[in-house]
This record gives sequence, C-alpha cells and structure tokens, in this order.
Amino acid sequence: MEYEKLNKESIIKYLLEQKEIIKFFADDEIYAQEIGDGNLNFVYIVKSKQNHSKAFIAKQAVPYLRCVGEDFPLSRNRMTYEIRALKKFYQIFPSFVPKIYHSNEEMSLVVMEYLDKHIIMRKGLIKATIYKNFAEHISTYMAATLFYTSSLALNSKNKRLLVEQFNGNIELCKLTENLVFSFPFMDHETNDNENTKDNKNALKLFTDSEFKKKVLTLKYKFMTQSDALLHGDLHTGSIMINEDETYVIDPEFAFVGPFGFDIGALLANLVNNYIYHSVVTKNETYKTWLLDTIHEILEKFSNKFLSFWSEYKDSALFVDGYLDNDTLNTYKEEFIQNIIKESVGFAGVKMARRVFGVAGVEEIRGIEDSTLRAEAEDMVLKIARKFVMNYENINNLDEITKMIKNAR
Amino acid sequence: MEYEKLNKESIIKYLLEQKEIIKFFADDEIYAQEIGDGNLNFVYIVKSKQNHSKAFIAKQAVPYLRCVGEDFPLSRNRMTYEIRALKKFYQIFPSFVPKIYHSNEEMSLVVMEYLDKHIIMRKGLIKATIYKNFAEHISTYMAATLFYTSSLALNSKNKRLLVEQFNGNIELCKLTENLVFSFPFMDHETNDNENTKDNKNALKLFTDSEFKKKVLTLKYKFMTQSDALLHGDLHTGSIMINEDETYVIDPEFAFVGPFGFDIGALLANLVNNYIYHSVVTKNETYKTWLLDTIHEILEKFSNKFLSFWSEYKDSALFVDGYLDNDTLNTYKEEFIQNIIKESVGFAGVKMARRVFGVAGVEEIRGIEDSTLRAEAEDMVLKIARKFVMNYENINNLDEITKMIKNAR
Repeated sequence: MEYEKLNKESIIKYLLEQKEIIKFFADDEIYAQEIGDGNLNFVYIVKSKQNHSKAFIAKQAVPYLRCVGEDFPLSRNRMTYEIRALKKFYQIFPSFVPKIYHSNEEMSLVVMEYLDKHIIMRKGLIKATIYKNFAEHISTYMAATLFYTSSLALNSKNKRLLVEQFNGNIELCKLTENLVFSFPFMDHETNDNENTKDNKNALKLFTDSEFKKKVLTLKYKFMTQSDALLHGDLHTGSIMINEDETYVIDPEFAFVGPFGFDIGALLANLVNNYIYHSVVTKNETYKTWLLDTIHEILEKFSNKFLSFWSEYKDSALFVDGYLDNDTLNTYKEEFIQNIIKESVGFAGVKMARRVFGVAGVEEIRGIEDSTLRAEAEDMVLKIARKFVMNYENINNLDEITKMIKNAR
Repeated sequence: MEYEKLNKESIIKYLLEQKEIIKFFADDEIYAQEIGDGNLNFVYIVKSKQNHSKAFIAKQAVPYLRCVGEDFPLSRNRMTYEIRALKKFYQIFPSFVPKIYHSNEEMSLVVMEYLDKHIIMRKGLIKATIYKNFAEHISTYMAATLFYTSSLALNSKNKRLLVEQFNGNIELCKLTENLVFSFPFMDHETNDNENTKDNKNALKLFTDSEFKKKVLTLKYKFMTQSDALLHGDLHTGSIMINEDETYVIDPEFAFVGPFGFDIGALLANLVNNYIYHSVVTKNETYKTWLLDTIHEILEKFSNKFLSFWSEYKDSALFVDGYLDNDTLNTYKEEFIQNIIKESVGFAGVKMARRVFGVAGVEEIRGIEDSTLRAEAEDMVLKIARKFVMNYENINNLDEITKMIKNAR
C-alpha cells in the first residue's frame, strides 16, 4: 500500500477496510476527531456513534515535524520504530503499554487503545498528585524492557536481530545527539536564545569545559553502547497515568542504546518537578514524596532487574557453568550499580539541556515569574552539574537523593 | 545467480564470464590449482598459462567449516562480510589490503591479488625474521581502519549504515563469544582436553573467579560496544608479510565492535611469539626486537589515530565549536589511553584462550617437548592474567612491556 496522508474522513474509509477494526466496532458507525496535542504526528480519536465509550486512538506520521510544518522535514519512518517498539514492549510486559489494534508501517499508522481515564503524568506532577503505585509500575516496566532486550537475556543471534530492527532509526537518534548532548551547551540557533542572551548561567554553562567533557563521554556512550532496547525519550510527558494504572507511550525514539538512558530521562524529569515544587509551590510533603519515589524507583528497578536475571542461566553473555555463584552475584551487583551510575550521568545531561536547549519543560521554562524561573534554572544547573561530575563515584541511592536535597 | 560450489574446472568457466577477469587475463588461457591452506574455505590460485606471474587468488565459502567437514555447518554468508570488509578497508587504506578483482556475495566468492612474495607472518616470526617496517605499517592500518569507521569520523547516519552492513555477521561473532571468551576458561568439550586433563594450570585457570569475572566484563564490551569496524581476527596468521610490505587478509569476522579488540589480538600474538622465543630459541636479540616492536606499534598507533582525528572538526560525536581546544585535547588523550587499556585487556583474554581452547597457536601448542610447552603455557597464563587483572590501571606503554619482560 502506498503512503497517503489521511484526514478525519479518509481515515474512516481506511479503517473500515481493516479486519481488526471491523471486529472491534462490529456493526457500529464510526467517526474520527482530530486531537491537537500531537507535536510530531496527526492524532485522531475514533469512536462508535452508538457507544461513545467504544473508541481508540489512530496516529499517523507525516514526513515533517508537524508542530513546525513542512519546512522541517522529518522522515515518517519514525512511526515504523514506534510501532515496532510498542509491539516489542507490549510483548514483554503488556500491563504498561497501550494495546495495539492495527498497524501499518507503509502508511506510518498505528491504531491503539484509547487511554481516556489517564492524564499526561507531567500535568499530574505539577498539580502535586501523588501516584502511590507509580514507583512499583515504572520500575517493573524499566527492569523488564531493559533486561529482556539485553544480551543478558537474549542469545547472540536474537540480540543482533533486535539491533537490526531498530538500527535504521537514524534521524531521531541524531536529534537526540544534537539536541540533548550538544547544542544546549553551546551558543546555538536551536536554543531558547531569548533566555541565553546576557544570562550569567548560560555563559557559565557554555564555558564549563570540565562539565562539557563529561557530557561528551556520555554522548559517546549514547552513540555506541548497545545494551538494550530503549524507549529513547522516557520523560513524564511520555507517561499516561492515574492512581491505579501507568502507561508508557510514544516510543518513536526507540533504539538499542545504553541501559542508563531511559532511567536517566525519568530521573531528570522527576528532579525537574522537585525543583518546580521547591521554587514555586514550596509543597514540602510533595517534595518528600518525590524524593521517596525516586529512591523507590531506583531500588525496585535494581531488585527486579536482578530478579529477572536470576532466572536466566544461559544467554549471549553467560554460558551456564562458567562462573561460581558467589562471583556471579558480585558481578551482577557491580553491573547493576554501574547502570545506576550511568543513569545519574544521563539524568544530569537531560536536566541541564532543558534549561537553554530547544523544548524546555513546563516545570522550568513554564515558570512565568522571571525571578522564580531564574532560581529554578539555577537549581537545575546545580544538580545537573553534580550528577554529571560525580556519577561515576556514586555508591548508594542515598547519595543521589542527598545531591538533590542539598542543592538549596 | 544461484549459489553453486565451484571446483577447479567450473571456476574457470565462471571466471571467464566476468568482465573484470577477461580484462585481467586478456586472451591468455587460464587454469586453477587448489591450495590446501584454507581452514574455512576453498582457495584456488588462478594463473595464465602463457605468463605464470599473471595470477590471482579465488576464494569460495562453503556452507560448513571446511577443515571439519559438512558435519559442522557454518553459514557461507561469512564471505559476504569478508567481501564487504576487504572493500571497506581497501577504500580506507589500499596499501595494506589485497586488491579485489571480482566479488559475488550470492556465490560467496572473492577474487583478489595473489600475494606470492609474502609469507604468513606467524611463520616468519617463528623463524625470528625481523620486519623493520611492520610497526610502521600495522600501526597505520589499525589507526586508519579504526578511526575512519568510528563515530569520531563518520556522521551519525553513515555510522548506522556501517553497523547495518555488518550486523548480520551473527555466526562468526558468536564463535568469538564462545571460543574466545567463554569455553577456554571452563571444562568444555571444544577445548584441547588432552591438555587440560590433570593439568594444574587448567585447574587453576578454570577456578580463577577473579580473572573470569574480568573476562566477562571484556566479553560484554565485545558484544555491546560499537566503536568501529573491526577485522575481528587480527592474529599474525591473518597477516601476509615480507621485508617491504604488509597485507592484512581474511576479515571474515568483521563487525562493528570495540576499538581494543583488533589491537589486543595483534598484541596477544606478538607476546605469544615472545614467549616462544623465551622458552624455545632463547634468542635475546629477537625478543628485544619483539618488545620494541610492541612498544612502537602502540605508540605509533596512538599518534596516528590522534593525527587523523585532528583533521576532523565535525562528526557524529563532535559539533565544531562545542569544546575549547585544550579540553578537547585532554579528552582525546584520555580517549586513546582508554583504547590502549582495553587492548591490553583483550590481549590477555586472547592469549589465555590459546592455552586450552580450540585452535591453539603454533608458538605454544606446537612446542613438541612437553616440559618446554608447559613452561610456555605457564608464561602465557602469567602474562595473560596480569593483562586482564590490571588493564584498567595502565598509565603508559612501558608498563605493558615491563609486564611481559618480568614474567620470568
């Protein structure tokens, strides 16, 4: 089938020709509504006229960045990787990924579960909503997706086949290389230049050679370390949540990269939210919940990852019987510690890039009072620098929460 | 074209249909002779009847390991990667790679320059031949092939395209994972079990948990660190040499892996040869030449790698203007030091695996006197252990040659 950009009429025609869709709606009439919050893509809710609760989401990529327009070409094959990643993650742990009803790589189209009882997590965090199951859920999601797509679980052949499936996600990987690891730390046109002009923090950051050298080392890891299949953009805007359920969406940046990158992205976003509440709402209870949650996520992630690992005797890395149990356990402990360390390093980069780089987060750049915003930026850069400069020497989780707490 | 195993008659018929071959031999009559030293493949010399010096080598893979027979199936697509690697390396630095006249991935066939004035380097080293240009040549070869296929030179897209071209070399990567990094360090049927039985060194090695834990870390790097396109099996049997020229052949193990693996393979083979001369010939002059050569190779490699790098202002890793020159130079120095460190680690694994693992080297396993062989094995394991346990802490090249020298 040749690619064709659909609209809210033609999508109905297309959908009614797909057997999974016919099955879903049976004899109901259906209609589509475009929803506006697609930055990159066109997103529709498709509903039954007879029963409004019968609905799903259809998402189609266009060969440009939708929020900018046709002047910013971006290959629509990003949807190919989103489809593949959604399917792979769903297969590993269906509880935390929307169900896919239909997908078509040629049409850059995916049809999936409509999460109407959930909100974007970032919105909830800004409103200081406590999600008591979140640490439990997201630690399982991360431990499972990272472990089961790594050389610790897969055999040599299947690991390489996985690399093959995602290696072509060239453009979005390059976006991250530039927009996360390079441009936000130098004078660059993609930055929020209004904000960098005559800004003492920007000047300090852009000339902080020691920090930038460490960032380069982390960037090199991002580009060359093929640990596991990553979501690739696991911020709190990629999570749909309510008190009971957690869903991870939008994995179009998926590729086989370093373990610590997804964990680091999540950590960075929770810390940025902590800073928002430190500066703006001064909600101490919520700040405590955030710190406890960070600690709990990292602790549970480590335990679950090790627990999944304990069930695998044979993989690309391990040949059963190669090593005695005590040494093997020490090896695993060190391995997981190393993942946590690298996560903190990546978190530092992800935090710092949100200050002046393109695509700032609501918690920091969205602060309207310029004095408060400057205070928040100060705090972001202080913690980010600590993370990046010290990540290799972190020995336990308390050191991480202390670095956050002691920033002001 | 469908695959067909050729013999010395049918290969002539095939070749006379290829335009590059017709051009090479013009109107001469040609004939083929099989040469016996293909472990994996069928290898023919094809010569002109009118002019015997007009000749080339034709090499065809069969879907099994030739030296074992059809009982050991091995996908013939290994030739696909050999062809791709030969072309890529030739393109980077033609002086050190045989010229390809014709290749056919479907037929698993390559036709290349006949190196009739050269011998397998291992044979020359055993006879204590001094190759005064070798360090100069091989350091250029390694610096060029590793640098120009890395993210330090390639842009993000081309690096991923390179990964794509070689990612399918699954079977041979798996062979290395097993036969270099795992089986030789445990009781395993593929080992030279005659040699391991009641052998105190074997018992010591197989229970040396600290050593094996370090090997596991290096194996993990081998499997997941996508630095550059490697030869993948750069021992002294993969080098054809004379006093003036050096050629690297047989890159069927090529894949995108860690920088240090090729350098480590070469280092391991030179040290094994040093051990041979320490134990068997006691040729002190040659031993000194070997140590000097090791030092010179590593030093020249480092300098040339840095020199190639200095000409690249913009790549996947670097955005021009990101970092001041002084810091950038420190970054590069540390980067190259890290390559040397990892090379020493890989060298240790490669040395140790030759003692009891399948495919021993002539310099060690070929020693007929069992007392001398035991002495050599002792020395191999001593140096290998030092390399593997200490590689992360090496600060300069003299420490490496000292470790070798002080082993007895």
